[in-house]
Amino acid sequence: MSIKVGIVGATGYTGAELVRILYRHPEVELVSLITQNYDGIPFSEVYPHLYQYNDMICEKLDLPALLDVADVIFVALPHGHAMPIALEAANRGKKLIDLGADFRLNDYSVYEEWYKVEHTARDLLGEAVYGLPELNREQIRRARLVANPGCYPTSALLALAPLLSKKLIDPGSIIIDSKSGVSGAGRGLSLDVHFCEVNENFKAYGVGVHRHTPEIEQELGKLAGETVTISFTPHLLPITRGILSTVYAKLNTSLCQNEVQEYYQEYYQAERFVRVLPTGLLPRTKWTAGTNHCDLGIVVDPRTGRVIVIAAIDNVVKGASGQAVQNMNIICGLPEDTALIGPGLFP
Amino acid sequence: MSIKVGIVGATGYTGAELVRILYRHPEVELVSLITQNYDGIPFSEVYPHLYQYNDMICEKLDLPALLDVADVIFVALPHGHAMPIALEAANRGKKLIDLGADFRLNDYSVYEEWYKVEHTARDLLGEAVYGLPELNREQIRRARLVANPGCYPTSALLALAPLLSKKLIDPGSIIIDSKSGVSGAGRGLSLDVHFCEVNENFKAYGVGVHRHTPEIEQELGKLAGETVTISFTPHLLPITRGILSTVYAKLNTSLCQNEVQEYYQEYYQAERFVRVLPTGLLPRTKWTAGTNHCDLGIVVDPRTGRVIVIAAIDNVVKGASGQAVQNMNIICGLPEDTALIGPGLFP
Amino acid sequence: MSIKVGIVGATGYTGAELVRILYRHPEVELVSLITQNYDGIPFSEVYPHLYQYNDMICEKLDLPALLDVADVIFVALPHGHAMPIALEAANRGKKLIDLGADFRLNDYSVYEEWYKVEHTARDLLGEAVYGLPELNREQIRRARLVANPGCYPTSALLALAPLLSKKLIDPGSIIIDSKSGVSGAGRGLSLDVHFCEVNENFKAYGVGVHRHTPEIEQELGKLAGETVTISFTPHLLPITRGILSTVYAKLNTSLCQNEVQEYYQEYYQAERFVRVLPTGLLPRTKWTAGTNHCDLGIVVDPRTGRVIVIAAIDNVVKGASGQAVQNMNIICGLPEDTALIGPGLFP
Amino acid sequence: MSIKVGIVGATGYTGAELVRILYRHPEVELVSLITQNYDGIPFSEVYPHLYQYNDMICEKLDLPALLDVADVIFVALPHGHAMPIALEAANRGKKLIDLGADFRLNDYSVYEEWYKVEHTARDLLGEAVYGLPELNREQIRRARLVANPGCYPTSALLALAPLLSKKLIDPGSIIIDSKSGVSGAGRGLSLDVHFCEVNENFKAYGVGVHRHTPEIEQELGKLAGETVTISFTPHLLPITRGILSTVYAKLNTSLCQNEVQEYYQEYYQAERFVRVLPTGLLPRTKWTAGTNHCDLGIVVDPRTGRVIVIAAIDNVVKGASGQAVQNMNIICGLPEDTALIGPGLFP
Repeated sequence: MSIKVGIVGATGYTGAELVRILYRHPEVELVSLITQNYDGIPFSEVYPHLYQYNDMICEKLDLPALLDVADVIFVALPHGHAMPIALEAANRGKKLIDLGADFRLNDYSVYEEWYKVEHTARDLLGEAVYGLPELNREQIRRARLVANPGCYPTSALLALAPLLSKKLIDPGSIIIDSKSGVSGAGRGLSLDVHFCEVNENFKAYGVGVHRHTPEIEQELGKLAGETVTISFTPHLLPITRGILSTVYAKLNTSLCQNEVQEYYQEYYQAERFVRVLPTGLLPRTKWTAGTNHCDLGIVVDPRTGRVIVIAAIDNVVKGASGQAVQNMNIICGLPEDTALIGPGLFP
Repeated sequence: MSIKVGIVGATGYTGAELVRILYRHPEVELVSLITQNYDGIPFSEVYPHLYQYNDMICEKLDLPALLDVADVIFVALPHGHAMPIALEAANRGKKLIDLGADFRLNDYSVYEEWYKVEHTARDLLGEAVYGLPELNREQIRRARLVANPGCYPTSALLALAPLLSKKLIDPGSIIIDSKSGVSGAGRGLSLDVHFCEVNENFKAYGVGVHRHTPEIEQELGKLAGETVTISFTPHLLPITRGILSTVYAKLNTSLCQNEVQEYYQEYYQAERFVRVLPTGLLPRTKWTAGTNHCDLGIVVDPRTGRVIVIAAIDNVVKGASGQAVQNMNIICGLPEDTALIGPGLFP
Repeated sequence: MSIKVGIVGATGYTGAELVRILYRHPEVELVSLITQNYDGIPFSEVYPHLYQYNDMICEKLDLPALLDVADVIFVALPHGHAMPIALEAANRGKKLIDLGADFRLNDYSVYEEWYKVEHTARDLLGEAVYGLPELNREQIRRARLVANPGCYPTSALLALAPLLSKKLIDPGSIIIDSKSGVSGAGRGLSLDVHFCEVNENFKAYGVGVHRHTPEIEQELGKLAGETVTISFTPHLLPITRGILSTVYAKLNTSLCQNEVQEYYQEYYQAERFVRVLPTGLLPRTKWTAGTNHCDLGIVVDPRTGRVIVIAAIDNVVKGASGQAVQNMNIICGLPEDTALIGPGLFP
Repeated sequence: MSIKVGIVGATGYTGAELVRILYRHPEVELVSLITQNYDGIPFSEVYPHLYQYNDMICEKLDLPALLDVADVIFVALPHGHAMPIALEAANRGKKLIDLGADFRLNDYSVYEEWYKVEHTARDLLGEAVYGLPELNREQIRRARLVANPGCYPTSALLALAPLLSKKLIDPGSIIIDSKSGVSGAGRGLSLDVHFCEVNENFKAYGVGVHRHTPEIEQELGKLAGETVTISFTPHLLPITRGILSTVYAKLNTSLCQNEVQEYYQEYYQAERFVRVLPTGLLPRTKWTAGTNHCDLGIVVDPRTGRVIVIAAIDNVVKGASGQAVQNMNIICGLPEDTALIGPGLFP
């Protein structure tokens, strides 16, 4: 069996990471690397770490031609660009995994409010599945259009799912303090990613207004069975890869460390990619570098009646391209961890 | 006028920073650099960036001799070591500024509970003043023994003082999510400060149990006029200098951004070292690097009814040695900003 | 087939990297992880990035027991420690790959001069093979005792081999200016690896006296057929992984860029792990991160009559553990790239 | 006395550094901050670390108006932009210090060959003085137009001046292997300064063709009294500030460490900004961070007959803005170290 895969937006960081991960995938044949700026240029010239690994020539988008040759299409572009591609892919019955935000929000008006663009593929929102396999595996299995979660939401949702689904916390008390590496901002140029502005520096940004907020609230709301409003604060770490989210919530009842710890271990016991660390061990971003893991550490604080959950992922892998391949494996009926298992790079 | 100054613990990072800052101080004469490990060695050999600036010879502690020559003593040692020195300094009527924790907690039993050592100078606790000049200036002015605040508490207290002192927030809702550079751990060796373990990495530590918690709660309690219990989570940033604290609290009443912003500007308008950034501009650690400033950014989030205050300091300066010099200036009757004003290094 | 492998010094960085690489090796069974400081502790507690990947218990060295169960032994210890192990392994006819320096220098007196310890296994020096497969593949194939090259020498030798073996340069003109990441110093503690001392900093060290000098000169001498004396200067980069060596030499005859470039491509055309980059593209350490590649860039400078060759490797992989596995594959008759091929992590 | 100073190109990194340094200058009044992109915006909005230190409004260039108000003009722009400004300043008899390359090369045809633009102010080349005070102090004193040296040349020339001026080395054997922090590339945007491309990475660039080559050769030639041809290789360090140059040369006669060391100490004994480190201590970039120092370390290697000199500077200070202020002090008859003395920031 060989799945023919095309990547639209192959020359961004998440596109390049798809190429890296799929190199090890025994069932995938890369048929097309689509780019806006590097048309006609070998991929390994854009990313020389892949020299002699992938010397395919990048191409401009020719949507009909792409849909002729590809079974599965990854769209690794900023929001707003996946809608027209998804519409055409739907017409042709092709599977599509969107790493951007276009199909993550079920309500188009919420999308339009937070993203300030019109949603031009509203009819597809009903069939799009939010691609967080640990929570939505069965729906993903039957999906044709998968909305790959945002990087921050992946960490926050996996941290909170056990607590909210069993109503152990007060949903109104949730605070998500997240810290991300710079690769989350992509390869585009701006003063925000200039080495001298980021290095030896740290800042919060988008406080109260970051676009991942409604995405997190929507999915938490499904878990809680009620509307959830959160405080979410992203920060920029002077590292390349990694997100660590520190999540605070008030416990509804007095639970001890052991009870909550065991509950997490049980909740995720069948999950290959979620590692619930033993009590006393807290996640570090680097322990997940280059892997599809989400590491969780749990602390119950009896002084305050709060539980603090710390989640670490590699934002480019579990927060983007790794999770996208995980979704592809599911919708194609392959073992879910194909090309995704293996220890990360440390130190 | 010339103040004769001795530094006990001169070869740690905060000791070296005292030397750097005092180099520019027109009223100070350094008379003694006390060290445990570098006895007989020129200070500039321990810190070659000071080559030709300070070539004094480091000495072992000889307390009577030190008290003979010094008017003011800075103790830049880990907790537990300042108590005997302070007792003797008290006998001799010398001024002492402790950069450690020995005199920060008013209640010796709280100290003993969190620091796991006996307090052997309980009689001095009554006269020790918590050295955060922006809050306690008048008491400091009359003090002989100053407990220099911890780095995290400095950022948290300056962030929260305006809100708590006017009872604008619910004290039970306070969450302080702090991130610190590695210099806060000092120059001692451990795997926690090994470059390969810290670089490109990020972690939380001491969740719910960090020793700065009771210090923050004590001082917040004074501001609030009631007992305050907080969640405080420190994290380790892969940078050398800087702390950024993201502080969350529920507003008691519906206040808009402008009201809270103006209130902060008014509260700190006479303070030279606290810069309340204009609405929309959020602090970054590097903007304070090498300076005695605390930069504050305020965001009122009407969606959640919370206020988020972000505070940035250089942990080695305003979080330690700069603030210690500020305290020295106050207790010696000098202009408070002597040797402390000037822009930082950027980029 | 299954090769039973033991690692002595498993809890250092190169030991942990052996574990990571061998996880993907289909023909290897790890039977013993030997350590000095973590006896009885699960390996994944020492290196939590391997949590759920390797939860073996670390053991103290019991040499007879180790030799009972292992077919191949990797020694990943500082110099001086492999000699007694190698002697006993020889008695038992077991294969041993030493990642340290004990068997790299053919002449024990040179070893004793530069390393300041007695060589206690001189009889083995005759059979030890210098394990740089690209130069010594046939000898390695027949070897029982392999001296895995140093990290700096690996980069320098691969950079210079084509030039020296064809006598294109003046051996007396060679200057090797190398820059290494901090992981090369290992996981041991010292001020030299303290984050605050390394970060945002850069230095040269061991100028003229670094122990890799005689190793480089010995192997260059074999290639040149004459005694070679070099200037070698190592520097410490504020990065975790990677070595980049900039190598200068005077060309004996006037050769143009194309001639030298083609000669390198021809020389290394059968080598899977040496990537001769096209003219105009110069290596970067990060393009090799996590891989067993050595990337080479060549510049002929007609103004000066010099050729400048730039070599980049991951010091922990091609400079240590990856090359050790490559050697193991060769001496065990396996495909040389088993567990070693695949793109690195970028960005 | 008060010198009225205008900065053209104030919003680049070297411009901002001029503002930082001149803040401490007792004799300077900043009268104009000229910018291309931030017209009408407060300087502290472009550089918030200067908030409350410099809130002047940036202006577009109006040359006649600038020359009306300023006594001394710093031009901190890329090459090619200073020529028209210098012509007009000459007409008006105003002093000008160019931090760019337009007046560094005495021969306009060399400039045009390496910089690929026409030199449109050839008549001024005769009066322009190369502003390296340690070598050209007397000429600078009488100059009206100063060409501030490049960052790499500053480090290389101070490293080699003692050797060449006394003909101790073979000029044909000089190799300069330099490593620079990213701030040297300025604040402009390109993939070369993207955090994720630089961080945890290291590369050489411009091998054999960097534009600082003829500048170094010109000034070395003056010292040697003959034509000098060098190999110069710049590299990019993942740090913000700092240059370290490792310089190799063959000694003409057999000299020991002590002889060369003493000669350096003697050569630079009157220089406040050049610190010849004692034998055995080698420079580190961070020891110069934020200062106008050039630290030198000398190693004589009897094995190879070479001397290796290591020079470290802060590329933004001694390599640019600090040296420019040093030149201003000289041409204005002020103490040369005004606003420039003081220890740097460490760690």
